[in-house]
Amino acid sequence: MLRTHTCGELRPDHIGQTVTLCGWVQRTRDKGGISWIDLRDRYGITQLALEEGVETEALREAARNLGREFVLQVSGRVAERYSKNPNMPTGEVEIRVESLQVLNPAKLPPFLIEDETDGGDDLRMKYRYLDLRRNAVRRNLELRSKLAQQVRRYLDEQQFIEVETPVLIKSTPEGARDFVVPSRMNPGQFYALPQSPQTFKQLLMVSGFDKYFQIVKCFRDEDLRADRQPEFTQIDCELSFVEQEDILNIFEGMTRHLFREVKGLEIGEFPRMTYADAMRLYGSDKPDTRFAMQFVELNDVAKGQGFPVFENAELVVGINAAGQSGFTRKQLDELTDFVRRPQVGATGLVYARVEPDGTVKSSVDKFYSQEVLQTWKAAFNAAPNDLLLILAGPADKTRKALNELRLEMGQRLGLRNKEDFRPLWVLDFPLLEFNEEDGRYYAMHHPFTSPKPEDVALLDTAPGQVRANAYDLVINGVEIGGGSIRIHDRAVQARMFKLLGFSDEEAQAQFGFLLDAFEYGAPPHGGIALGFDRLCSMFGGADSIRDFIAFPKNNSGRDVMIDSPSPISGAQLKELSIETTVEEKL
Amino acid sequence: MLRTHTCGELRPDHIGQTVTLCGWVQRTRDKGGISWIDLRDRYGITQLALEEGVETEALREAARNLGREFVLQVSGRVAERYSKNPNMPTGEVEIRVESLQVLNPAKLPPFLIEDETDGGDDLRMKYRYLDLRRNAVRRNLELRSKLAQQVRRYLDEQQFIEVETPVLIKSTPEGARDFVVPSRMNPGQFYALPQSPQTFKQLLMVSGFDKYFQIVKCFRDEDLRADRQPEFTQIDCELSFVEQEDILNIFEGMTRHLFREVKGLEIGEFPRMTYADAMRLYGSDKPDTRFAMQFVELNDVAKGQGFPVFENAELVVGINAAGQSGFTRKQLDELTDFVRRPQVGATGLVYARVEPDGTVKSSVDKFYSQEVLQTWKAAFNAAPNDLLLILAGPADKTRKALNELRLEMGQRLGLRNKEDFRPLWVLDFPLLEFNEEDGRYYAMHHPFTSPKPEDVALLDTAPGQVRANAYDLVINGVEIGGGSIRIHDRAVQARMFKLLGFSDEEAQAQFGFLLDAFEYGAPPHGGIALGFDRLCSMFGGADSIRDFIAFPKNNSGRDVMIDSPSPISGAQLKELSIETTVEEKL
Repeated sequence: MLRTHTCGELRPDHIGQTVTLCGWVQRTRDKGGISWIDLRDRYGITQLALEEGVETEALREAARNLGREFVLQVSGRVAERYSKNPNMPTGEVEIRVESLQVLNPAKLPPFLIEDETDGGDDLRMKYRYLDLRRNAVRRNLELRSKLAQQVRRYLDEQQFIEVETPVLIKSTPEGARDFVVPSRMNPGQFYALPQSPQTFKQLLMVSGFDKYFQIVKCFRDEDLRADRQPEFTQIDCELSFVEQEDILNIFEGMTRHLFREVKGLEIGEFPRMTYADAMRLYGSDKPDTRFAMQFVELNDVAKGQGFPVFENAELVVGINAAGQSGFTRKQLDELTDFVRRPQVGATGLVYARVEPDGTVKSSVDKFYSQEVLQTWKAAFNAAPNDLLLILAGPADKTRKALNELRLEMGQRLGLRNKEDFRPLWVLDFPLLEFNEEDGRYYAMHHPFTSPKPEDVALLDTAPGQVRANAYDLVINGVEIGGGSIRIHDRAVQARMFKLLGFSDEEAQAQFGFLLDAFEYGAPPHGGIALGFDRLCSMFGGADSIRDFIAFPKNNSGRDVMIDSPSPISGAQLKELSIETTVEEKL
Repeated sequence: MLRTHTCGELRPDHIGQTVTLCGWVQRTRDKGGISWIDLRDRYGITQLALEEGVETEALREAARNLGREFVLQVSGRVAERYSKNPNMPTGEVEIRVESLQVLNPAKLPPFLIEDETDGGDDLRMKYRYLDLRRNAVRRNLELRSKLAQQVRRYLDEQQFIEVETPVLIKSTPEGARDFVVPSRMNPGQFYALPQSPQTFKQLLMVSGFDKYFQIVKCFRDEDLRADRQPEFTQIDCELSFVEQEDILNIFEGMTRHLFREVKGLEIGEFPRMTYADAMRLYGSDKPDTRFAMQFVELNDVAKGQGFPVFENAELVVGINAAGQSGFTRKQLDELTDFVRRPQVGATGLVYARVEPDGTVKSSVDKFYSQEVLQTWKAAFNAAPNDLLLILAGPADKTRKALNELRLEMGQRLGLRNKEDFRPLWVLDFPLLEFNEEDGRYYAMHHPFTSPKPEDVALLDTAPGQVRANAYDLVINGVEIGGGSIRIHDRAVQARMFKLLGFSDEEAQAQFGFLLDAFEYGAPPHGGIALGFDRLCSMFGGADSIRDFIAFPKNNSGRDVMIDSPSPISGAQLKELSIETTVEEKL
């Protein structure tokens, strides 16, 4: 090795030893005849010292010529520092330099390699390899590595087998968002990259693997909203001979294990809530349960008093911001503007304050008597100084808007602490969603999810009401994972495909291998997939997944560092038996 | 859970307990009024018993209707067996069945789900999910999972960080064998799938990650010889501030760890051999060192006696099959036919036997006196009863042919025991190979490999003689991995690209990000990549990697189970801005 120790390793115990370190120049200082160099590697920072009259002038000259980010190999004696830095693990010692070799010089980086950098997003993406040098970013990836390690440790202990499923698979007609790969050996034909290993993990259950997992890259060619990546990583699991309860327990256990081992935290209960309740009480299938502020439906008390907005509304619903009657007119106007944004979609906001004496003052006092307003207060179970915020309109849209308002209020009131973790299982999702535009049903999770046995009869009469054996793990309002008990019966699976608009021929052409497999002794099985990028960012206390991915792509799916995607040569296209329909811009 | 125990778990301690098992019917037997069912899962087999007059007739009738591979849930009491099977871990007990539920019936499988199956390759590939039920195949994948686990454990302990590098990267002009992926969001442009994460892992070193690893899928669109797959898995590693010696030590340590933990074996020394010696002594850069039979060069003693084949040959070279003078004429004719095969490429075989009295009898006696033949004997260091096998011709071609003959002899003589593991480091590979056809040099490993410092001067005068800081790990004649100390200096890397025929513009367009990165403080670094599929098959004692991959592709790159690759719709092509140049065969 070119070094005897790392830059994070030396302690007072080492004083007097001669050591060799390698690393990057973080910064240099000169004061009172002493030059200091902070030498950095992944493990820490160690101070080097060169003193006038002690270290040689040649060495001191060499040190003065160093720039930021130069790569050095330095030998010297470990000495006690004159002025110790208790904030650094190596802060009690320094190296008195005896030799110094520049292993590689460095141009001045385009932005500061510090926790607080001056580089903009675009510049940091282009020089990602420099951004990754910053402690803040590198620690994210160390956290990711540690989380992956602990996921594996837990699942290993539970006798899960890690199996790699193929990356070059088959495109499906549902797979409008598939990335495809032309095959040179099979001209005119294409592989697809998996959006998930779903069918393969189910086949592994048919094979008797019993407990499967994989931390696996998946791919989706969709328009990239703020926080999506075309390639993303899943913790993918499947188990045989299990019921929903078993899966919830095992993955509650895994989540606890991760918080314990990676963050040293014992997290609390994993409450369970039906999808119906989540929508009714939070207007969302992934409620943030770090704070209450549950929805209160007001149709009974708000209608029949002549206020046209409420009279004409399908739903009048509100939340109680307890103790917040002090919100100013300006703040309330801001909230009104907030709910009127197109992405929130409400037409207006009604509010009411509970005065210290218990009377209620609302923004619609002219329509409501104090007597009626007291019934509102009772509905909200409100107390003096509470603030009631009320929306009205079509039920689904209004719930969605109130969910946004609730989250905004949680944010404003500091109720969404990133170090407070509140898990929740959301259960009993609908099996199907009707799409008005296409006039057909779509699977809410995917076509392999089983209906609840007690709802099977509804498949013929009211498919939209059938509940699925499906569950989501939500933490702090973020969907961390989801799964289901699968169909393992050929007839039920075939019926499901039919409901989803497949002809028998289409179903057989696309999923014949799975339908056939179900006839050769398929066990009852189910599973779950957790979004690993999202899990990492949650553990790292961040909102974005991008800084937990070593080399992410931007919103156009481009890697600006390597400049990809890019045109390929005509010869290469010809070998692959394809042409592009775009004029070459080379 | 649908079960209380697995089928591999019950022991005499459990006798008297009531248990529930789930699994597949391996086989059923009826004899003397008792029906037995062998119930199988991943963990083992447990015998179920139903006796006339003891278990109910309804249960016995249900049992008689079971077919192979039916999926059952069975409850009953654990009882001591009448006739114990000491060869089965569960062989002392059986379940007296109290209830039996068919969870899923099964059609008769198209081949036997037994260690020795009657299914041909094609059938087993089509029904891969059934082939995976066979113990022999499932154990391969369990071995793979265990190997991956132990690789990670070792590297974790050595402070390696696992980092995921991107799958959607950039095609390179060298990348004739790249799979490409059209980008919907960037019409006319393509991603490529990585043949290895080489440049990314080097960038991680520039970022200061210090020790990186990843068990990662790589892709190569090449004509698939016997034992290649278009997607394969590498154990990919890179380290900073290291020299070759450090890397050899760390990965020798990993290999020892794997043999110890996975096979319970302490393997012997890891000798080292230069590429030049390997070619001279074995005619191969991956010699099988489980047996000696090193090459002996005979130009000095074989020429000058008028035997035209030897006179005109660039090289006369042979091996000594010690004690094998008893090879019959028929066997020797077989060997002659063997070396004449086009893929071996020799024109003929000369042999000589050392008789019990020390005299030598050769197939070319009319050209050689006993006196000369005794010099051959001395050159081979041969003893009575040895058999000398000699080839002659152009040096490279003849060494290659003799390598094949040596391996064939090792096979015939039983010297290639699959449970005897002989590792070897091959060092000092040439940096470049000259391709006569293209009239240019190619990198023997890849363009990022550094030349040995003492050979740098030869880059201008005799590039073909420059040795690289490159090394291969060979076990039993199989290349398990290879790596190198990399170039970390922009000027040296640019010079290397020039030698490989890149213009400055091409080098900058393709690898500008790496060249630029080298200017911002790149540390000395190096690494290695091990073929994980190959490692698994070696640990499993198999020659082929295919049975160590859950869902492999065939020699045409097809997955015959899911029928992929396949045509995609015109709408999908249009969205991707591509067309195929092949008439649709739909």
